[in-house]
Amino acid sequence: MSDFCHSLPRTVQDARTPDNWVKRDPQRLRLTGKHPFNSEARLAPLFDAGFITPAHLHVVRNHGAVPRVDAQKAKDWRIHIHGLVENEVSFSLDDLKDLFPVVTFPVTICCAGNRRREQNIFRKTLGFSWGSAGVSTALWTGVYLSDILDYVKPHRRTAKHVIFEGADDLPQGPYGTSQLLSKARSKDNRMLIAWAMNGLPLEPDHGYPVRIVIPGQIGGRMVKWLTRIEVSPQESQHYLHFKDNKVLPMEVTPERARVDDHWWYDPRYMITELNINSIIAKPDHNEILQIPASSPDSPDEGTYNLRGFAYAGGGRRLGRIEISLDDGLSWELADIDYPEDLFREVIHDDPIYGTIDMTDRDTCFCWCFWTFPVSHSKLSETSVISVRAMDEAMNTQPRDMYTNATGMLNNWWFRVAVHRTETDNGIQLQFEHPAPMETTGGWMERIQKEGQDVLKPRFGPSVSTELSTTP
Amino acid sequence: MSDFCHSLPRTVQDARTPDNWVKRDPQRLRLTGKHPFNSEARLAPLFDAGFITPAHLHVVRNHGAVPRVDAQKAKDWRIHIHGLVENEVSFSLDDLKDLFPVVTFPVTICCAGNRRREQNIFRKTLGFSWGSAGVSTALWTGVYLSDILDYVKPHRRTAKHVIFEGADDLPQGPYGTSQLLSKARSKDNRMLIAWAMNGLPLEPDHGYPVRIVIPGQIGGRMVKWLTRIEVSPQESQHYLHFKDNKVLPMEVTPERARVDDHWWYDPRYMITELNINSIIAKPDHNEILQIPASSPDSPDEGTYNLRGFAYAGGGRRLGRIEISLDDGLSWELADIDYPEDLFREVIHDDPIYGTIDMTDRDTCFCWCFWTFPVSHSKLSETSVISVRAMDEAMNTQPRDMYTNATGMLNNWWFRVAVHRTETDNGIQLQFEHPAPMETTGGWMERIQKEGQDVLKPRFGPSVSTELSTTP
Repeated sequence: MSDFCHSLPRTVQDARTPDNWVKRDPQRLRLTGKHPFNSEARLAPLFDAGFITPAHLHVVRNHGAVPRVDAQKAKDWRIHIHGLVENEVSFSLDDLKDLFPVVTFPVTICCAGNRRREQNIFRKTLGFSWGSAGVSTALWTGVYLSDILDYVKPHRRTAKHVIFEGADDLPQGPYGTSQLLSKARSKDNRMLIAWAMNGLPLEPDHGYPVRIVIPGQIGGRMVKWLTRIEVSPQESQHYLHFKDNKVLPMEVTPERARVDDHWWYDPRYMITELNINSIIAKPDHNEILQIPASSPDSPDEGTYNLRGFAYAGGGRRLGRIEISLDDGLSWELADIDYPEDLFREVIHDDPIYGTIDMTDRDTCFCWCFWTFPVSHSKLSETSVISVRAMDEAMNTQPRDMYTNATGMLNNWWFRVAVHRTETDNGIQLQFEHPAPMETTGGWMERIQKEGQDVLKPRFGPSVSTELSTTP
Repeated sequence: MSDFCHSLPRTVQDARTPDNWVKRDPQRLRLTGKHPFNSEARLAPLFDAGFITPAHLHVVRNHGAVPRVDAQKAKDWRIHIHGLVENEVSFSLDDLKDLFPVVTFPVTICCAGNRRREQNIFRKTLGFSWGSAGVSTALWTGVYLSDILDYVKPHRRTAKHVIFEGADDLPQGPYGTSQLLSKARSKDNRMLIAWAMNGLPLEPDHGYPVRIVIPGQIGGRMVKWLTRIEVSPQESQHYLHFKDNKVLPMEVTPERARVDDHWWYDPRYMITELNINSIIAKPDHNEILQIPASSPDSPDEGTYNLRGFAYAGGGRRLGRIEISLDDGLSWELADIDYPEDLFREVIHDDPIYGTIDMTDRDTCFCWCFWTFPVSHSKLSETSVISVRAMDEAMNTQPRDMYTNATGMLNNWWFRVAVHRTETDNGIQLQFEHPAPMETTGGWMERIQKEGQDVLKPRFGPSVSTELSTTP
């Protein structure tokens, strides 16, 4: 019975929460207990799903209960657009479809807290732990925000910000945040008012009936259950616009950030664009590779394909992804695959999903995938596999963690430790991720227990190779 | 007489070169011998000149002889705009002024080779040495390239690149390079066809009579003595479009780059945007600070203001500049001053220089200045002062040098070594830059001679504090 319980329909874990009506995959990792629902997929199925993430594996970040919206309520839904505009309007979803070109294209969405568990192991931040799978890609359908702004005509000079507000009912009011008007009006940024994901209406967790999708930015800017757009002389005054999605300076510890309120109101520390990140998915955490002893009968040695994904912000393409097998002394290029490029080659007009046409742009708003083949013999002499990506503006991931109070945008080199055991039949390699979410293990927790400085990890034979055996 | 010679008019150093007609300040540092003329200012006068760099201190990068253009030739000058466009045209400068809005605004121009001398000390790259002053800011007057492109109407779908060509006569043909059409057409990028600098016609070294200025990009994309703009399905085929302004992968040594031609034709390694950089100007190289012994009569200790500048690419603002006095263990915020912001507050219409109006944009295309006050006592306990900047997209400068075949876009932490001597009257501090251009000294050369790894510098009492005494 107990095993069976875990595979019951979705209401079991949510039964005693306001979300008890929401259908969810019970296999999902829940990062903040039962409620609110915050979830990433397990790394392996996320990676294996490929370029387009199925909705049931897609990252979810909720701040409270999901607004309960049925079909009738969705039909009656209005987005009120007001403030410093010539034409104040209230649009239904049908209005949007009638008035503006409908478009569909893929966008990667990533929580700014992705990889925060690594920072939490070093020092408890103000945020809950995410592993490295808080990132997903979907096809989004909607209309461009820039078209809507052209329609309502923001006042010249005085209008500076565009504020978005959702329908969620949080202790300090609804969730809301804002963009600079100059960025929101730019067609190049392709901010989208979206009502469909992967060809279906949004799921409740993804903002049914309508949300914002902002390519190249952190997930926290993409307001769900959108009710209101305000053009304003000042930025959003919503509580979480100030108290969330910041990377405060390194010198501001979580304790100082709790006490010194002014840090949260300094616009310089607001984060909008994603920064560069890359993740090793293969080998997975705790994966084991058996390398048979070579014999005269099998002189050809095997190859292991290191694989993973990477992403960046602001539409910038990743021009190179580099692998180091000697803890950063030398780096070699991985092969890069950008499935997003396939969308640049065709123009598709669909009666429902509008136009898919990326032939006129060069920006990259999706993750890419990398492969680095390495011989078994070389891999067996390696103590740590590191990956770093570099974007077309020559920004790259740092060797050192930028420790910060919220633990956001953590993007130091992703390192997988390699543990080698000689066996009767050859060599066994076991791989260890820094801070996997699905277990309590990982090399960061392990070396911290051993008394090492987790921010200056040393790998290799001089270090204990005893593995945490926690499943 | 010998001293006097150095202050003679400009023809002395250029006398036996094709540039013998060009007027130049004889004090300028010449980085490539006599010819072609490549020059940065000395760091101290560049910094002391402030936000707007006078033309005589402004960085110059020439690939050959300066095209000789007199007033009549300038009047007859035409820019031919052709290729995949509906309206092929040939514009004089007067045509440009008549047809399009004239604008003026400040832009920082930086050679991608700035700080290359540091890489050349580690390993001779394919490029000549620049110090840290290969960067300048001027007021540029002209018309927007995007307006011109709207006028000539590029063909939809087939047109992908915009090629620029200058009038210089190089062994492999004129200098030329290209931009993606999608970026060139975007008004946000504010690419400019410019004929004036700091309110005067361009000097010959800066492209008289007309050049391109591309805010947020490396200097090498800003073609001077502009004669031709071609809208094309393919990128520029000019020799130096391929063989210059690349950051090849770290694994490609200068030797490999010389032999394996294919690296130069891989578009992923082309550089366009500037990356993030920050420089310490005060203390200057070899500057000496005398700290008198404290006495009961003077209990207040003094303060030294560390100062410098910083810049980034792509219009991204620097949100923080951090100083470390313990070689990167901890970082504190410097104060930042963005003089560019003053231009956002006014709208100025001038009959000659057109409109200065930055009220509708939030991008940053200029350098900023930073200050970090530190007490004499704290400074005297410091072995190295490091600076790093971080842009609004949370990209920052790396601890480690990204060594590459051309030695371009070098932006590891800028570090100034501090040497302390106890004297009868107190303490004397002497400061040492990594690789100043105006002398042969600097700590990189010094520690290399001492047998240290220049890429893993160690500072402090355990290291020899003997200074290079080369003037």
